[in-house]
Amino acid sequence: MSNTFGTLFRITTWGESHGKSIGVIVDGCPAGLEIKEGYVQEELDKRAPGQSEVMSPRKEADKVEILSGIFEGKTTGMPISMIMHNKDADSSKYEKIKHLLRPGHADFTYQAKYMHRDYRGGGRSSARETASRVAAGAIAKKLLEKYGIEIIAYVTEIAGVKAGKIDYAEISKNEVRCPDKDAAKKMKRAILEAKNEGDSVGGICEIAAFNVPAGLGKPVYSKLEADLGSAILGINAVKGVEFGGGFGLARLKGSAANDEFAVKSGRIITRTNRHGGILGGISTGMPIIMRAVVKPASSILKKQKTVNYKTMKQETISVEGRHDPATIVRFPPIAEAMTAIVIADHMMMAGKINPDTLLG
Amino acid sequence: MSNTFGTLFRITTWGESHGKSIGVIVDGCPAGLEIKEGYVQEELDKRAPGQSEVMSPRKEADKVEILSGIFEGKTTGMPISMIMHNKDADSSKYEKIKHLLRPGHADFTYQAKYMHRDYRGGGRSSARETASRVAAGAIAKKLLEKYGIEIIAYVTEIAGVKAGKIDYAEISKNEVRCPDKDAAKKMKRAILEAKNEGDSVGGICEIAAFNVPAGLGKPVYSKLEADLGSAILGINAVKGVEFGGGFGLARLKGSAANDEFAVKSGRIITRTNRHGGILGGISTGMPIIMRAVVKPASSILKKQKTVNYKTMKQETISVEGRHDPATIVRFPPIAEAMTAIVIADHMMMAGKINPDTLLG
Amino acid sequence: MSNTFGTLFRITTWGESHGKSIGVIVDGCPAGLEIKEGYVQEELDKRAPGQSEVMSPRKEADKVEILSGIFEGKTTGMPISMIMHNKDADSSKYEKIKHLLRPGHADFTYQAKYMHRDYRGGGRSSARETASRVAAGAIAKKLLEKYGIEIIAYVTEIAGVKAGKIDYAEISKNEVRCPDKDAAKKMKRAILEAKNEGDSVGGICEIAAFNVPAGLGKPVYSKLEADLGSAILGINAVKGVEFGGGFGLARLKGSAANDEFAVKSGRIITRTNRHGGILGGISTGMPIIMRAVVKPASSILKKQKTVNYKTMKQETISVEGRHDPATIVRFPPIAEAMTAIVIADHMMMAGKINPDTLLG
Amino acid sequence: MSNTFGTLFRITTWGESHGKSIGVIVDGCPAGLEIKEGYVQEELDKRAPGQSEVMSPRKEADKVEILSGIFEGKTTGMPISMIMHNKDADSSKYEKIKHLLRPGHADFTYQAKYMHRDYRGGGRSSARETASRVAAGAIAKKLLEKYGIEIIAYVTEIAGVKAGKIDYAEISKNEVRCPDKDAAKKMKRAILEAKNEGDSVGGICEIAAFNVPAGLGKPVYSKLEADLGSAILGINAVKGVEFGGGFGLARLKGSAANDEFAVKSGRIITRTNRHGGILGGISTGMPIIMRAVVKPASSILKKQKTVNYKTMKQETISVEGRHDPATIVRFPPIAEAMTAIVIADHMMMAGKINPDTLLG
Repeated sequence: MSNTFGTLFRITTWGESHGKSIGVIVDGCPAGLEIKEGYVQEELDKRAPGQSEVMSPRKEADKVEILSGIFEGKTTGMPISMIMHNKDADSSKYEKIKHLLRPGHADFTYQAKYMHRDYRGGGRSSARETASRVAAGAIAKKLLEKYGIEIIAYVTEIAGVKAGKIDYAEISKNEVRCPDKDAAKKMKRAILEAKNEGDSVGGICEIAAFNVPAGLGKPVYSKLEADLGSAILGINAVKGVEFGGGFGLARLKGSAANDEFAVKSGRIITRTNRHGGILGGISTGMPIIMRAVVKPASSILKKQKTVNYKTMKQETISVEGRHDPATIVRFPPIAEAMTAIVIADHMMMAGKINPDTLLG
Repeated sequence: MSNTFGTLFRITTWGESHGKSIGVIVDGCPAGLEIKEGYVQEELDKRAPGQSEVMSPRKEADKVEILSGIFEGKTTGMPISMIMHNKDADSSKYEKIKHLLRPGHADFTYQAKYMHRDYRGGGRSSARETASRVAAGAIAKKLLEKYGIEIIAYVTEIAGVKAGKIDYAEISKNEVRCPDKDAAKKMKRAILEAKNEGDSVGGICEIAAFNVPAGLGKPVYSKLEADLGSAILGINAVKGVEFGGGFGLARLKGSAANDEFAVKSGRIITRTNRHGGILGGISTGMPIIMRAVVKPASSILKKQKTVNYKTMKQETISVEGRHDPATIVRFPPIAEAMTAIVIADHMMMAGKINPDTLLG
Repeated sequence: MSNTFGTLFRITTWGESHGKSIGVIVDGCPAGLEIKEGYVQEELDKRAPGQSEVMSPRKEADKVEILSGIFEGKTTGMPISMIMHNKDADSSKYEKIKHLLRPGHADFTYQAKYMHRDYRGGGRSSARETASRVAAGAIAKKLLEKYGIEIIAYVTEIAGVKAGKIDYAEISKNEVRCPDKDAAKKMKRAILEAKNEGDSVGGICEIAAFNVPAGLGKPVYSKLEADLGSAILGINAVKGVEFGGGFGLARLKGSAANDEFAVKSGRIITRTNRHGGILGGISTGMPIIMRAVVKPASSILKKQKTVNYKTMKQETISVEGRHDPATIVRFPPIAEAMTAIVIADHMMMAGKINPDTLLG
Repeated sequence: MSNTFGTLFRITTWGESHGKSIGVIVDGCPAGLEIKEGYVQEELDKRAPGQSEVMSPRKEADKVEILSGIFEGKTTGMPISMIMHNKDADSSKYEKIKHLLRPGHADFTYQAKYMHRDYRGGGRSSARETASRVAAGAIAKKLLEKYGIEIIAYVTEIAGVKAGKIDYAEISKNEVRCPDKDAAKKMKRAILEAKNEGDSVGGICEIAAFNVPAGLGKPVYSKLEADLGSAILGINAVKGVEFGGGFGLARLKGSAANDEFAVKSGRIITRTNRHGGILGGISTGMPIIMRAVVKPASSILKKQKTVNYKTMKQETISVEGRHDPATIVRFPPIAEAMTAIVIADHMMMAGKINPDTLLG
């Protein structure tokens, strides 16, 4: 519902881009989970790989402070409140375009729905909000780690350049989080070209979850695809999501699309994974494979036509400021966070993680 | 949650493929909506376009009975219970394969999760369950009709054959619900070929919702894409969903992907609709455009390798029976139903339909 | 929400007093629970102790039919749909008072809220709806039985006559479900006196739950008192609920109200139980003790002043028909059912019952 | 669910008594509600009437800071995050009793459930958490004010002393928030006597809501009594709640308990209000009247027997510190806040407040 997500493991986020601060409440994390001093910060830092040509030159410290729910280094089962203070942002450049609807942005829809909005930096619709999700996801990932579950997201396509292979070791080594070194170079080049033109690019991110046990998902309306899909489609700029063979399955025959079952080490597996780790809405134990498309960043320097909603006149806008030319490169950590939150929630709903305590 | 879907307009479905009956409770429909005797039946009938070569030769009468919530021809605001009796189905053919995991089916995951399941005809995981959704969707569509909102779903791709144009008038004229007459013929041919080979085909369905007012959707976790996506991904066999430009947006630049705003008849519109009617998770008033991929039907006559989960031995399976070679052709009405339910729910959540009564 | 109750163990009820049928969906019961043919019926029968002078002379067969969710004698984890057909009821007597607001009834509020209602027999607001709850409660009770949890409700006060002692063996032996034989006789006399005067009486019911483990309840908004209280206050005619010492605690000092802790058989207990088995919103392992007040039946033969909402004129009403002079004597099974549902739900939410399956 | 309460108007609270801070997120308040600088603070201040002999001598500044959701003096429809910093509290006295289970407290149940807890000052189970509810309630009250709805709570009984009359003007004039001046004096005396004995007293609070329109409440599981009851029973130390005639209705006959309908100024009313403003779970438009019993404060200086859960030995405890001898006198603002939240939520669910915006 609105700003709360999840059933047993729940997050509630708040805060606007240019407000005082942003934050998140994680509710339903069982007691007894060790959260080391600085762990969430490290996760956030890891996610903000510093200055890079392919990112906005903005520097956000994103110092997170944990205000509740952890006592003597362990969770208590109580809500975990985390806050990140916004630095004094310069809102002046938003002042002059406050009545201009930025194409591709939520200016129009927020105005239509609420009739009063914090227009500075996009307010609540800003991607800045996703930092709260990453902080919450850090708790979920730490919880899943105890059960051997690992989630990893990476960029497989940018501006038409596709990754040709998946080498997990490569992901953190390049600025575009691509698992294919050569493709990464081409992707970077495409981003810089767009940037020089005052334009932006889109891309595709793949998310994989390993060691998820068979049995997660609640048919028929909390199927794992439905809940993961909802989580991913709720992230800014995502316009599609697919699982396993995804849209490509439209072109396969049943005999080619079905994954045959086999036995391996006394466990039932499938030989192939076109089902993306989910059958009938329930996890099979095979890796969960999901892909999301992230549209090109809406904020571009290039001139676009738009409307001033006060005057109802046509105007031209050039969105100035230090924007990301490729939001897709910032996307993987957010996708990992939301995926971890869904899986933690379903682990509890399936009775595989005790919702009260990990102790005793 | 599980078998209940929605917030203010909610449905709860129940029933297994070969059980006594299936049904649905629609809760939260406002009082005063006129539901003519036989209306829901007509909707269900319309959806089961009778015998066709591209469908299973099975005949299901699907006579729906409304048991509550309607009085003197109008809804009362109370739960609307609808039931459809299953005809005596022959379960004998399922008896002999009850320990064989049908590839692509939910046999394995239901067994892993629940350890006891009604294996006959797939039980609850059967597509038969979706008849309940269509019945519930009929109520939602009737409600939306009062507000001028119309939802239409059609097949745009089967087995690699794509619709080249969208002619709404064509949809109901062909057996594959395709808006392109010529493509429809090729699609039919592809289906029959696969059928002859004991195989099946997949496809893509596009769903359009017209006259949806600007302002539906609750950021940041009940964005319209998230809730529609969850609804569509919760339908059997769907492995992906996309909005507007969808996955194609990965290959566009921001300047090409952004839809410019304009004023038309005193109303703000966008000139193009690559955003699919939703920006920032909120409807813009432009048509909502969504596409879903439906994998090829899992039940095929062709021999496939699988596992007997009792003996844990490898075996070969050939799924006999009268199966659909192309579940995609049965998909549009279900997609329309779930879309109508989500939009009705959001109309109420946005204060655009009174949740208690349409009267006075 | 409205007609659905519960989080992991959920019920959805539907149906009006004089409609075709009423029923309930139980969703979230784990797979593997044995439900013998006829068990739910026996529970319903037990609850309808046949003809008695203190009850309405109406005879309702309440034959329940289970339509889904049980296969080969065991639950499958799928929704359990149960239906009870209404016998052809005579609605003619409601026809003539359909515009008169029966004092104490929901006629006025349903009319004000929905502006269209099934006035026959109170429609959905009829106590008849509670039969669905009893059917659902039978499933919850069977589930809790496996964990040694027992719930029992009994009448401790009617028309000012109070039970002086609690002898569980007596409860089923008298027509008023009172655990005190002598008080039971006086209660019966008081009911018959009121009945002769064309009047009705109210009373108090105590509900006890034994062997509930320590640790149920989710502070701070799903405290066990809050969820039990919501369940009990949602039953027709209940106007108050209290736990342990209840309203009497207002007159005790802390030193008298606090229950001291002690150790018994290696387990921490309290010596007394003025806290009613719940501290800080979480069960202590001591018996849960709750009391509810049931107002006197609103339908009485005695003349009362009221309003005709069509004419807006004052009129006099005498509610004819075969009414219960003391709905309190029909209340305990409903209270047991709702209590069982809440405790089953919290057992799952606390990880003490696996929400998917009892097997393996 | 746990730390989130409400459906359309929702609050999520967090924070422990001796942690860094406490706070609340209000989600779902429509845009356009004017919240003046300092308004919430004034509400909190009003609630903390300074030093008084009947209260704990502790001084808590409770300076609230609004971090999001309000822009240029008006709500934006986005989550409103409010924070109150805890002063450096002395936790040393809790250190020495950290393994002793304080009778009447949640020490035992939190330990049993979570196995790890912040024992300082009761952690999350402390009444300090309720300051967050009062802050959230201030927003709800301001919203309801626009619709003429007013909520007022007052003490009607302390230590056996009952208010003999209700004079609203008196409530804020005495230290015990009693609407009867003479009773207030006796109540104060009773509190001081108990305090001198190292003991505490309990009491009863009545909550009245005026100008609530007819039609709020969602049968059959979100009846207004069920939701209000859940809200009130979720407040610390409450062990019972009743509506209108409440438990007294057990001793009335139907003819005396039913409230007759009449017409006044063209509106249907009841002549009396034993139904407490709610019939069939839906508001009638008459004042909503509710009472809650607050048990005597558990923390007392008097020696009590208890158990050390580490050693499992019997010990004696005397809870030192500056405790409230009568938590009941601090209760009314919390009850008002929770009542306002429930009513605001139901106003939206009944379509009487637009959930998105108050503007345009």
